[in-house]
Amino acid sequence: MLSIVNGQFCDLVSASNRGLAYGDGVFETILVRDCQPLWLEDHLARLACGAKRLNIPCDTSQIRRDCSLLLAGLNNTGAAVLKVVLTRGAVARGYTPYAAESDRILSVSTYTQCCQSWDDGIALGLCQAQLSAQKRLAGIKHLNRLEQVLAAEELHRRGYHEGLMMQDGLIIEGSRSNVFLVLDGKLFTPSLSRCGVEGVMRQRVLARAEQLGISVNIREFGVSLLQRAEEVFVCNSVFGIWPVNKVECMHKQIGPVSRLLQREFHSYFYI
Amino acid sequence: MLSIVNGQFCDLVSASNRGLAYGDGVFETILVRDCQPLWLEDHLARLACGAKRLNIPCDTSQIRRDCSLLLAGLNNTGAAVLKVVLTRGAVARGYTPYAAESDRILSVSTYTQCCQSWDDGIALGLCQAQLSAQKRLAGIKHLNRLEQVLAAEELHRRGYHEGLMMQDGLIIEGSRSNVFLVLDGKLFTPSLSRCGVEGVMRQRVLARAEQLGISVNIREFGVSLLQRAEEVFVCNSVFGIWPVNKVECMHKQIGPVSRLLQREFHSYFYI
Repeated sequence: MLSIVNGQFCDLVSASNRGLAYGDGVFETILVRDCQPLWLEDHLARLACGAKRLNIPCDTSQIRRDCSLLLAGLNNTGAAVLKVVLTRGAVARGYTPYAAESDRILSVSTYTQCCQSWDDGIALGLCQAQLSAQKRLAGIKHLNRLEQVLAAEELHRRGYHEGLMMQDGLIIEGSRSNVFLVLDGKLFTPSLSRCGVEGVMRQRVLARAEQLGISVNIREFGVSLLQRAEEVFVCNSVFGIWPVNKVECMHKQIGPVSRLLQREFHSYFYI
Repeated sequence: MLSIVNGQFCDLVSASNRGLAYGDGVFETILVRDCQPLWLEDHLARLACGAKRLNIPCDTSQIRRDCSLLLAGLNNTGAAVLKVVLTRGAVARGYTPYAAESDRILSVSTYTQCCQSWDDGIALGLCQAQLSAQKRLAGIKHLNRLEQVLAAEELHRRGYHEGLMMQDGLIIEGSRSNVFLVLDGKLFTPSLSRCGVEGVMRQRVLARAEQLGISVNIREFGVSLLQRAEEVFVCNSVFGIWPVNKVECMHKQIGPVSRLLQREFHSYFYI
């Protein structure tokens, strides 16, 4: 792993960093191929949007420079993942956010695309670990991720590579992805007004579906719609689109809408 | 600020630390007077309990040694605050908690007791920032503290030193304290089964109240009980007990139960 902290090559951060103290920050994980970050501007826009909602200063031009510097130092022509963390700057102990500055922590590590999941699809678990509703933080990719850690621990123990997380009976998202259903040829994805992360890939899928003339519904739904769905897929901006062949003991076909969208995005994820 | 990371004097942590990445850890803030930590064993017991619930390895004897080492290096005979952070060890990128190890980050900074708040009481705000319900994390002093940061920002802006946080109409706690009401001479404090932090000082107050023959009720309640309360106080293990003279525009008397409990604990917080 290669890292840059506030513009300097370094893999250490201050013990008083507020990301560490309170999860007081936002982050992005970005696919890199041939030293080029995929959809960097989308990621920076979301980072800036989350930072603004938390009132954390975000200078995207500085982060863009950090990215260039870090990726120029990368001895890797294959795939990698770039992680950008922006935390509120520390001034004094305590929750009150006095600082008018922020810390930028970027790191890059090697990554291998999972062709098998893309081609054959994956099985999803339904996580016991629930999401909590918090409108003030809904949509933001912030650093308070204990619910996802609990879900990932459970999925790992049960042998699943990904699983769905719910809030009060509603399906919200995967532990590290967004979820889409296909029913009567229409696309459904959960509303993220209560909780969940507004994924960059989710936005790309929604935009592309519209261009392709596929009807899109963003709304609240529970397990019954999942049961009725003809197709299910999960997506994020690192692994792309993984069709789902099973949710717990419920079998699903990998259908034409999933395959169509995979074809549309294939070149971004595979050379 | 003086720090020890995994037993070594150092104020830097790895950029891949999972406390920074996901808030994947627990912490304690402990009052230090004359280089002695107050109620260290209570704090270590709570830290270990939270770590166990998150399945993070916690070696309290190592942390005890870190504390001794850090406090022996302290050039301060007055008050200080010792912060102990325990995060899950990092192995690979991603939410899944593979590591069987943890990182210990201890730091100490100077502190001045606020006699005026102890004597004259404080005004509380009612925070717009809400707590979310999450039974899996309820009670634990974990590192996912964005809700408290949002509350603290709002309280600072409105000129309050502390405020009450609610969940679905129920009063749960202060932004950095637990809250108690007195009604008909009986003590009431919110149930923390949905969310909130089980404070070390809260436990001490509950135990002492029982010894003093004061009836104690731990239950869910909303603003109406707060309105009817004869006395209100907030507490934590760093500032002790602060009586409340006002909640928003609602005036409160500083009454005999608050003063009795303050007397019982005075010597722990003031020489």
